Amino acid sequence: MRYTPRSELYQRVQRLQVLLQNQSIDGALIVQNADLFYFAGTVQQAHLYIPAGGEPVLAVKKNYERAARESALENIIPLDNPKNLTKIIPAREQGGNNRIGLELDVLPANLFLRYQKMFQPAELVDISLLIRTVRAVKSSYELNLIREAAKLNHKLFTTVSEFLKEGISEVELAGKLEAVYRREGHQCLVRTRAFNMELAYGHLMSGWSLGVPSAAPGPTGGFGLNPSFSQSAGRKLIGRDEPVIVDYVGVIDGYMVDQARVFCIGDLPPKFKEAHNTALEIQQIIVERAKPGAVCGELYDLAVQRANASGWGEYFMGYPDPVPFVGHGVGIELDELPVIARGVTAKLEAGMVFALEPKFVFPDGAAGIENTFVVTEQGLENLTAGCDDVIIYL
Amino acid sequence: MRYTPRSELYQRVQRLQVLLQNQSIDGALIVQNADLFYFAGTVQQAHLYIPAGGEPVLAVKKNYERAARESALENIIPLDNPKNLTKIIPAREQGGNNRIGLELDVLPANLFLRYQKMFQPAELVDISLLIRTVRAVKSSYELNLIREAAKLNHKLFTTVSEFLKEGISEVELAGKLEAVYRREGHQCLVRTRAFNMELAYGHLMSGWSLGVPSAAPGPTGGFGLNPSFSQSAGRKLIGRDEPVIVDYVGVIDGYMVDQARVFCIGDLPPKFKEAHNTALEIQQIIVERAKPGAVCGELYDLAVQRANASGWGEYFMGYPDPVPFVGHGVGIELDELPVIARGVTAKLEAGMVFALEPKFVFPDGAAGIENTFVVTEQGLENLTAGCDDVIIYL
Repeated sequence: MRYTPRSELYQRVQRLQVLLQNQSIDGALIVQNADLFYFAGTVQQAHLYIPAGGEPVLAVKKNYERAARESALENIIPLDNPKNLTKIIPAREQGGNNRIGLELDVLPANLFLRYQKMFQPAELVDISLLIRTVRAVKSSYELNLIREAAKLNHKLFTTVSEFLKEGISEVELAGKLEAVYRREGHQCLVRTRAFNMELAYGHLMSGWSLGVPSAAPGPTGGFGLNPSFSQSAGRKLIGRDEPVIVDYVGVIDGYMVDQARVFCIGDLPPKFKEAHNTALEIQQIIVERAKPGAVCGELYDLAVQRANASGWGEYFMGYPDPVPFVGHGVGIELDELPVIARGVTAKLEAGMVFALEPKFVFPDGAAGIENTFVVTEQGLENLTAGCDDVIIYL
Repeated sequence: MRYTPRSELYQRVQRLQVLLQNQSIDGALIVQNADLFYFAGTVQQAHLYIPAGGEPVLAVKKNYERAARESALENIIPLDNPKNLTKIIPAREQGGNNRIGLELDVLPANLFLRYQKMFQPAELVDISLLIRTVRAVKSSYELNLIREAAKLNHKLFTTVSEFLKEGISEVELAGKLEAVYRREGHQCLVRTRAFNMELAYGHLMSGWSLGVPSAAPGPTGGFGLNPSFSQSAGRKLIGRDEPVIVDYVGVIDGYMVDQARVFCIGDLPPKFKEAHNTALEIQQIIVERAKPGAVCGELYDLAVQRANASGWGEYFMGYPDPVPFVGHGVGIELDELPVIARGVTAKLEAGMVFALEPKFVFPDGAAGIENTFVVTEQGLENLTAGCDDVIIYL
């Protein structure tokens, strides 16, 4: 079992503390699992209070012993009753209210209202953007875990040839691949942050089911199995001469890569080949421009321009409702910063990691590519392995 | 693809409308996926407004065509900009504010604050308990889906013998079983409602890893693979003469059963056998008393009394931190009502469905049973199939 090193946790805490100080926030009360894992190294049931300066307190409801083993923070205490949080976060002695930061993008309203009452007259402010900003830039420790996730995915993608046969159903193929994931240590949970964003391991579809739109958060939707979870693999049998896309998120010790490849048994119709090649060109254009300082929205615009010039613009990033992005940060959640999206003025920084996924979706199939890159001082480095071309089985 | 019938949706809507009227709430604005699926039959990105009387409106952002196909509601409109919600929910003309009900147990605080501003001066009230109350009593349509989920689980449990061999790792066994689930139509998503409650398909552990506590929401924790998701199967190899528990949630078309069985290769040590038999007695005691009108907390107390009388009370429902319940409602989320828990004064009603899981957890293993029951006028009916005894492979 690999625990997050002490120096790593304190570096993260200190980076958040700088942002808290800049915004005159007295401290952050962190409760969501992904953020607890990031700042405390554990997802045992707990409140983590990070003051704007000084030592954080991890107050654990369940299980204390396990939290104490998993977290390298100094100050870990048992806390059975959340009412005692007010002892950890004392009211400011004079001169006005505390300003306490909370994860208002994920905290349920009922909990927010309870904290508001508990900490009054403190002002509760949203620090979700601060947290996501800190988390967007990965340390070398984190990059090593992401590289392990990339190795897991390479194993997965090289196993597709073993199971992809004419007549297998999408869900049966999905299950066989996911069994490989599990055997190799995938935790069977891909965390997402946005409300109502649900996902299993990723998307696996073929032919017309690739073209079925849904509320799924990416360019592809999928017919799925039922209207309760209307995305990804369904009972459709995979045939010859149609695109099959495996778009799966490998996770090791909480850290992920997102990757997609197009497979085909037989001959891929020319439309999909051409669209795929355009997607590879778009990937190349962005790889050449995406250096520290590059503006995310401008990278997105370059992608759209190339897609439109190809004549396939109408089908770029989803049909009939395209998503307005071509890349998204990944780390311990699938929807981290940066987002390579329309109108985003934020700039890339060294250490950011994102999945770049130029794709074309048609009513009868899809094509495109997805790899996960880290921004370095020299430009993008591809963390995910394997040939980008369509993989043909005769 | 099976869509929720129109009569089913309108019965659900009308049951909620009665509760809204009783509480003088003007209408409910429903946005969470599970609740959207329940009341509208779709999880396409949408707002569902259910007035206290009259026709609901499903306002769809993405994908409209798919929502219109999936939902049998009458009034389905496209809604690109959530600001236009105020046209759907007009302010009360005279005599005070609207009272609008929201799912405050799951709605993120930021969204709550946005709605508060958008609908001011309306009063926003929590209707999560009303929704959960309506959802707790299942229709015959829902019971049929739950019976299908039970068939899926029976298939899963009868497949364990094929894969459970000495020396296989917990995660490899999990992956092989999950591949069966997928082939047979499991959607690979088990919905939960509580904040931070995370779960893959369920729990699969053996021997000492059964005894490792965690913040997982049930009696068992599990060592797991990493501190990012510290529960259920890990890399431990399954040995002879130790308990192996498969506790998995079968889902068909959104509806679930929760079920657990103890397996063992070789001889199960007497302690676990005795604890298992006590668990079966507790199940029997509750099956005899759990009729419409029975008080949930009293059923829980009976379970605890029997556990204590057996001498294994210290290990009942988790160790060292037991969970304070022995049963939980299931349906489209794993943590529905009713809860058979300490101090709960609510009474059982015909049509309620819950998983009953008396279990004993020791530092070196666990034993017990879990089946999913429906409350009928005559008492409990077991929906899950298969022998309750420990399943021994020699």
